[in-house]
Amino acid sequence: MQAIGIDIGGTKIAGGLVDEFGAVTGYTRVPTDAADPAALETSVVEMVRGLAAGRSLPVGVAAAGFVDAGRSVVYYAPNIRWRNEPFRQHLEGRLGLPVVIENDANAAGWAEFRYGAGRLVSDMVMITSGTGVGGAIVTDDRLLRGGFGVAGEIGHLRVVPGGLPCGCGAHGCIEQYGSGRALQRMANEIADGGGIGVPLALARKAAGGKLNGGVIARLVAEDDPGALAALRQLGGWLGQAMASLAAVLDPQLFVVGGGVASSGEKLLGPIRAAFLDHLPARGYHPEPAFAVAELGNDAGVVGAADLARLHFGEHPGEYSASGRG
Amino acid sequence: MQAIGIDIGGTKIAGGLVDEFGAVTGYTRVPTDAADPAALETSVVEMVRGLAAGRSLPVGVAAAGFVDAGRSVVYYAPNIRWRNEPFRQHLEGRLGLPVVIENDANAAGWAEFRYGAGRLVSDMVMITSGTGVGGAIVTDDRLLRGGFGVAGEIGHLRVVPGGLPCGCGAHGCIEQYGSGRALQRMANEIADGGGIGVPLALARKAAGGKLNGGVIARLVAEDDPGALAALRQLGGWLGQAMASLAAVLDPQLFVVGGGVASSGEKLLGPIRAAFLDHLPARGYHPEPAFAVAELGNDAGVVGAADLARLHFGEHPGEYSASGRG
Repeated sequence: MQAIGIDIGGTKIAGGLVDEFGAVTGYTRVPTDAADPAALETSVVEMVRGLAAGRSLPVGVAAAGFVDAGRSVVYYAPNIRWRNEPFRQHLEGRLGLPVVIENDANAAGWAEFRYGAGRLVSDMVMITSGTGVGGAIVTDDRLLRGGFGVAGEIGHLRVVPGGLPCGCGAHGCIEQYGSGRALQRMANEIADGGGIGVPLALARKAAGGKLNGGVIARLVAEDDPGALAALRQLGGWLGQAMASLAAVLDPQLFVVGGGVASSGEKLLGPIRAAFLDHLPARGYHPEPAFAVAELGNDAGVVGAADLARLHFGEHPGEYSASGRG
Repeated sequence: MQAIGIDIGGTKIAGGLVDEFGAVTGYTRVPTDAADPAALETSVVEMVRGLAAGRSLPVGVAAAGFVDAGRSVVYYAPNIRWRNEPFRQHLEGRLGLPVVIENDANAAGWAEFRYGAGRLVSDMVMITSGTGVGGAIVTDDRLLRGGFGVAGEIGHLRVVPGGLPCGCGAHGCIEQYGSGRALQRMANEIADGGGIGVPLALARKAAGGKLNGGVIARLVAEDDPGALAALRQLGGWLGQAMASLAAVLDPQLFVVGGGVASSGEKLLGPIRAAFLDHLPARGYHPEPAFAVAELGNDAGVVGAADLARLHFGEHPGEYSASGRG
């Protein structure tokens, strides 16, 4: 059975038809008008109508923010002016199709679990390092949604008491030490320090004064010592956070996604080293594997569609992968 | 249906018959001979035989340590010389009864979830503060066991990078800041500081130079300012750790157990205050409740028996509470 997945991002809305093997057809996207929730809703409705083409298909919608445990109401979204928005009810009313709302990081992580790096394990933690740090937790083949629906906000695990201020209002969150934005800060500090930072400083000048993720990734690919040092700092923090997460969640696999994951083993190496250095009861504690995400930008679309299909199709009332494959 | 629960502690083995309402009959205990695994196994076998009295009942055995995901093998125990001990196989062979092995903190947390402070929620985190800090996680009515069986080691969430050395080999674990032993350290520091610490110092002298948990609890009950200050430090650390755990796990309820829980609201107050001060996205993030554990020392016995009954009885092959009550 096909399902429709919609992923509402900060700058675009993407959608597609997804089959039971995770393949996407009919992929489409439009710009997001985040300032106008009514226009955004209409964009989603039109996109779904176009994809459904009159068929009755389940619809999964992924968005950044806190979604309630009933997968219906967006309590709060950082990018869109929603407060306790009954988005599922609105969409079902206008579409006449069954809809579930999902947190976007959970949807993307679920896609990796079903069709990507996590497809062979039952317990997985995904950490997505982009502008912020997002996460998704799968345990015993199930998406961990939490008591209020807002579990898996791994970016707000605190790693430094009284540390850097975070956009969430707290301090010292891993988001401030393990995100792509943190990598840029680290690279800039190394560029400012001379020595191995000189190539970074030159690249920054050539790029108009900004060391963005693409420039850093290129220097990493060239094994530039300064860029590799920045990546090691980032990986060190991520690995330390994962050591705490292993104590609490005990995954078989950590999956790293987001822009920084393009550095592959050059990032996973420092992560693994820091993880083992900080793993409680090292030597006695079983050790998880580490991998980079395999699905690309349409992971949110794939995961949202899959969660909708499982919810309304094979396993009504629950999100379980026991019918995977 | 009745089930047998056995709880192997560092100093004693406790056992009992537990009915489907969590009531314990036939409670019995013997000293643990932790240095002699063969003698310990024989003690457990004799205790189970006495409780079973010839009936075929499921047996749950709780022990401190890492238990595999198959609930059969103890990878490692801190107090008993076990390495990859196939304890389930040994016991089933000698007893002819179905056996599951469980981590002791998980068993105790499960009992609180089924019959104690957590009986009205679906998602709960229990933190037990005693000599160390133990934990148990219930999510969506299920015990979170993890990919290798060793989830819920909440005591080894790191709260201070490069912090106090922990018995696990890592540094800065919440166990070093949130345990009953940490409370003693804090109380001693306050006693050494004069001022509000004078009554603590006098009580320490009267107790032969040691401020143990009982002495501190008595001073807390008397609202001694120094003892309350130590409890606030402890609660502050626990609340900060819970803020990180709420971001990751999103429980509806935190349950605090162990010796320090006897201080009740005098501990929960500082925990709640620190939690809210450090909660990511405060004001938008749903807020869990806080409670002290309701079951006493036999929680491990009750939980182990209940998990065995659910495993072999109502829901073969899984630990689920969907048939609770």
